[in-house]
Amino acid sequence: MAEPALDGLGDPLDTPLFDTLAIVGFGLIGSSVARAARTLRLAATIVAVDRNEAVCARAQALGLADRTTTEIEAGVAGADHVLLCVPVGACGEVARLAAPALAPGAIVSDVGSVKGAVVRDVLPYLPQGVHFVPAHPVAGTEDSGPDAGFATLFLNRWCILTPPEDAAPDAVAKVRMFWEAMGSIVEVMTPAHHDVVLAITSHVPHLIAYNIVGTAQDLEKITQSEVIKFSAGGFRDFTRIAASDPTMWRDVFLANREAVLEVLGRFNEDLAALARAIRWGDGQMLQDFFARSRSIRRGIVQLGQAQPYPTRLDGDTPSAKDP
Amino acid sequence: MAEPALDGLGDPLDTPLFDTLAIVGFGLIGSSVARAARTLRLAATIVAVDRNEAVCARAQALGLADRTTTEIEAGVAGADHVLLCVPVGACGEVARLAAPALAPGAIVSDVGSVKGAVVRDVLPYLPQGVHFVPAHPVAGTEDSGPDAGFATLFLNRWCILTPPEDAAPDAVAKVRMFWEAMGSIVEVMTPAHHDVVLAITSHVPHLIAYNIVGTAQDLEKITQSEVIKFSAGGFRDFTRIAASDPTMWRDVFLANREAVLEVLGRFNEDLAALARAIRWGDGQMLQDFFARSRSIRRGIVQLGQAQPYPTRLDGDTPSAKDP
Repeated sequence: MAEPALDGLGDPLDTPLFDTLAIVGFGLIGSSVARAARTLRLAATIVAVDRNEAVCARAQALGLADRTTTEIEAGVAGADHVLLCVPVGACGEVARLAAPALAPGAIVSDVGSVKGAVVRDVLPYLPQGVHFVPAHPVAGTEDSGPDAGFATLFLNRWCILTPPEDAAPDAVAKVRMFWEAMGSIVEVMTPAHHDVVLAITSHVPHLIAYNIVGTAQDLEKITQSEVIKFSAGGFRDFTRIAASDPTMWRDVFLANREAVLEVLGRFNEDLAALARAIRWGDGQMLQDFFARSRSIRRGIVQLGQAQPYPTRLDGDTPSAKDP
Repeated sequence: MAEPALDGLGDPLDTPLFDTLAIVGFGLIGSSVARAARTLRLAATIVAVDRNEAVCARAQALGLADRTTTEIEAGVAGADHVLLCVPVGACGEVARLAAPALAPGAIVSDVGSVKGAVVRDVLPYLPQGVHFVPAHPVAGTEDSGPDAGFATLFLNRWCILTPPEDAAPDAVAKVRMFWEAMGSIVEVMTPAHHDVVLAITSHVPHLIAYNIVGTAQDLEKITQSEVIKFSAGGFRDFTRIAASDPTMWRDVFLANREAVLEVLGRFNEDLAALARAIRWGDGQMLQDFFARSRSIRRGIVQLGQAQPYPTRLDGDTPSAKDP
């Protein structure tokens, strides 16, 4: 496979931000960080840590790490930046295993889509003198694994940091520089606020996308082939996000239960009102409701966040007519 | 604005399929048909009929019709193909107004997203000797109006015909040729089956997309600007279809009430089961459920229906990395 274009990434740094970057979990996100960090020389040495030997072998074969290991302790030893790129449900256990080997002054971070639960699970294991600066790059594709990553995944995407109130400003600044170097736009908020924002912008949308795909698969009257054929009418917009990694998403919903159930409750109330309007023929209510949503779309388009996930493998390229 | 590329459309016909094509309702779909029919010479004469004078003026200015009129009777008189491109709720009234002027042997068709209600509303008004061959091109964008159309909108898209059982085979064949010439893949089914298939592949997806955008707009804890900024996490996949024409969609839901409420009922049951699994921490159920949906996505990708709506205006172009 040809190397993806690196348009938009900056020049490599003269002096790396970190001596040793240990990436724990080498899937789509971890391998994308490795690619970007390598291209931009954000770390002098990159260590890929993954409990799956085949993944370590791929990391080696792709030339994405100076060293690979299946042993967490060995992998993080001596690193000044340890980045957890595992599903959020695994972060606590990884922190527990890594703790004895963490170097004083090391910065531990993660890329999880839920922040409250990760802080709760990871912080207790970290030794005094180790900094924790949780991060969430709001970027991804529906593909998984080390081959799915690419260096520009974070380019022009938001990255949310949720440092504890007493975090060392230098550590936060360094993590911010790390993500900004990869092209991200960094924003800081509390874990609790992050989790509500993501519940509505990401978690509940994924849940209802998964759900409607399931509903479609269970309809007896129509075949799966019909669903696939006529998906251009709207359904296919849901299938892309419903093809995301099942383990990652299981963990997201379990870890962000309160915010997801709260937003979902509101979603259900609103949907019940729409269903009622349909049943009773209240066209005015429907039209008014539908007319409201155009403003949000316009905002997204204006902010340049309208393009689908950058995607390489599935031919998701619209035939743009008129650039 | 430059003319969009016409790649993929065939050569113009030597002999037009129809003498006079009257397009009633000259929005996104009607104007796209006009562009394609003109480019491919599917009709010797094209008449644009729209009750809105400004729309008629645009059709003239864009050079998309030989004649324009706001009067339905005058517009359809003498046409051998009358294509209703108005919201489905308006089809019956348009048929009533057109009926006195319809030429014997004329083929009346439509492009509505609901077929049972259109057949019910239109058929009673059509004089003996006029053929009715309902059609539904499964194609569209979130843009509206005569400027939003383009000639390749129907290229490689399905078009579903739902002719009455006693329809004249010649009339059905001609409508099939008309859509195939514009690049569509034609399939024939009953109106009732069409309406269930579209309820799951299009109508309910649109409803829940509209709904989640509404839910997001009503959250007090987070701002609209936050929703917009972090929409890349999944939300923006919904905003595209939730930006579609409100009047068209109001009519779709009112006209396809039974099938929509039936599918929505199943959707709600399935969603309640997922919510319950989240509340009680049933990770296995969630993971199994999420793993199922990948097969449908693969089918869509393989069938080449994966690209988003062809879209010209909003920059929805993914940064495809590796063609």
